[in-house]
Amino acid sequence: MNRTKARLSDGREIVYYDEAPGRVPAADQRGLAPVEPVCETRRDPLTGDRVTITAHRNTRTFLPPADQCPLCPGGPASEIPDPSYDVAVFENRFPSFDVRTPPVPPSIDGVERARGAGRCEVVCFTDDHSASMALLPLSRVRTVIDAWADRTAELSAIPGVAQVYVFENRGVEIGVTLHHPHGQIYAYPFTTPRTERMLASAAANPDLFAGVLKAERAGGRTVLAGEHWTAYVPAAARWPVEVHLTPHRHVPDLAALDPGERDELAVLYRDLLRRCDALYGAPLPYVAGWHQAPVGEGRDLLRLHLELFSIRRAPDKIKYLAGSESGMAAWINDVPPEDIAARLRAAGG
Amino acid sequence: MNRTKARLSDGREIVYYDEAPGRVPAADQRGLAPVEPVCETRRDPLTGDRVTITAHRNTRTFLPPADQCPLCPGGPASEIPDPSYDVAVFENRFPSFDVRTPPVPPSIDGVERARGAGRCEVVCFTDDHSASMALLPLSRVRTVIDAWADRTAELSAIPGVAQVYVFENRGVEIGVTLHHPHGQIYAYPFTTPRTERMLASAAANPDLFAGVLKAERAGGRTVLAGEHWTAYVPAAARWPVEVHLTPHRHVPDLAALDPGERDELAVLYRDLLRRCDALYGAPLPYVAGWHQAPVGEGRDLLRLHLELFSIRRAPDKIKYLAGSESGMAAWINDVPPEDIAARLRAAGG
Repeated sequence: MNRTKARLSDGREIVYYDEAPGRVPAADQRGLAPVEPVCETRRDPLTGDRVTITAHRNTRTFLPPADQCPLCPGGPASEIPDPSYDVAVFENRFPSFDVRTPPVPPSIDGVERARGAGRCEVVCFTDDHSASMALLPLSRVRTVIDAWADRTAELSAIPGVAQVYVFENRGVEIGVTLHHPHGQIYAYPFTTPRTERMLASAAANPDLFAGVLKAERAGGRTVLAGEHWTAYVPAAARWPVEVHLTPHRHVPDLAALDPGERDELAVLYRDLLRRCDALYGAPLPYVAGWHQAPVGEGRDLLRLHLELFSIRRAPDKIKYLAGSESGMAAWINDVPPEDIAARLRAAGG
Repeated sequence: MNRTKARLSDGREIVYYDEAPGRVPAADQRGLAPVEPVCETRRDPLTGDRVTITAHRNTRTFLPPADQCPLCPGGPASEIPDPSYDVAVFENRFPSFDVRTPPVPPSIDGVERARGAGRCEVVCFTDDHSASMALLPLSRVRTVIDAWADRTAELSAIPGVAQVYVFENRGVEIGVTLHHPHGQIYAYPFTTPRTERMLASAAANPDLFAGVLKAERAGGRTVLAGEHWTAYVPAAARWPVEVHLTPHRHVPDLAALDPGERDELAVLYRDLLRRCDALYGAPLPYVAGWHQAPVGEGRDLLRLHLELFSIRRAPDKIKYLAGSESGMAAWINDVPPEDIAARLRAAGG
């Protein structure tokens, strides 16, 4: 893996991860004005959870025509000046968190307030506008994993970053605003609410992740089992399609994976994505998110794992989050986890 | 308010709340087979949250043509046998929780498991297929409030019910499966995760709800202020449109409201809904959910309040819950709460 760093015309960083050496980055000719992000977090007094307010994002790029795709390489509208790439990662032009964001007062009407001083990146893993992660060659998936690991290490080192979340939103059904396949990385300036819950569970039961993995491997919902990784539909799945992919070794993040674990992950992850697309005979809309340990407190408690889920509950039906889920955080799942595990196993590799 | 109880042909209960006396319920001629719900809850070991699995619901009625609407009164497909109604509440044919659900083993692969033994109801508040709550006469809104209060009291008395959630999902954009306007009630057999968070905050700060109300009334995000109620956009709003409507008196639930509070609520709630529809010049898709104190532990801690929110972030744009919200419970809101409060105030009454 060959890493090359450059800057876009507005000062944002772009990092190429190439399978062959020799990248000489092309200059960004667009002459963009510097981004002026306005990101802040406020702590909801009723729940204690942090909410992020990002006034500048409501005008972000929304499903542009293919000839103006910012992720296809080299065009006049492109975020990636080079005419081709393997993996290219750049700072999001419409970030939810950014270290450039201006200061805010420490509170508003009694509610704790802080700068949303993190970093958001876009991860492009193919210059083919109509490809997908599931259709990449294994060597490319392996490069993506190295890029994820490197980004995790770099972003974790930014002062104030508390947690790095590597994820892919796939499909217009879940609100993807660019058709070109891509992932994202959020370097949060706080530990996320879902992770806080997991840390509390792990603090009460230090055997939590090992115990769940052992029970799931013995249960009936395993989808894939390798030497280093197991993929299973969790017993208490919230979503009509949900799979967790968990390493057998207790590691905090992607950067801590050794080469053998990365090699197997490339094989199993692509296999899992292909099964997901086979489930309904069409590309599955999904969120695939890497839960990583926080940078600071609780780092030893949380085990790296992928949570992949989809809102598709039938070939022609979507699971919407409405009153119970969005209002009360009480998930109702119409699809038994045992059924979806059996169907993913049967979907072939 | 005149309450009349009856049974549908499959044994489900229907309750009419009429403004005039004299209802003699018509018989349900459909001869439906008894419902056989299969509802269970499983406790996610990673977060401690309960997830509900409802295998029978994946085939529920989905956007039927208007002539087969189950909520229009008296037709052959109708759930409401009478030819007209003011407010009619009946047990959901496709419930997420039901006391009739069969037993389950106490665990599965180490994960705690229980019957989903609660009750789900549908609240019809107009027999006009194309009406909306915002367009009802005030007298009807007042009857709806009495019906909500009565249902809350009745459902809270069912053994095993821990919390009663009265809500309306409005709009196909959030997955409503019936066009005819209606609300719902979920009587959960557990305290919901969001409420658990609020109870933890209130246990740490007994002044929580009074303090937030006081600060919000003094802040710049008030939308409506009455003698008994205040509506405001919370400082840490998660959604592009979000309004909390909170009573000035610390009451646990709708059943505890006195007549004066109910009278003013009818006026303010309808006013609020009309402002919401005026915001983008079109019916706003929304979830309007009543947060009520649990029946048992924590009952004195939580103050009744409405949380109304919408996923609409612009006339032509929806806020989707994707990686950060659905994966990490970290909400990103593109619309500053101060802006939406000013726009709702300007939207007129």
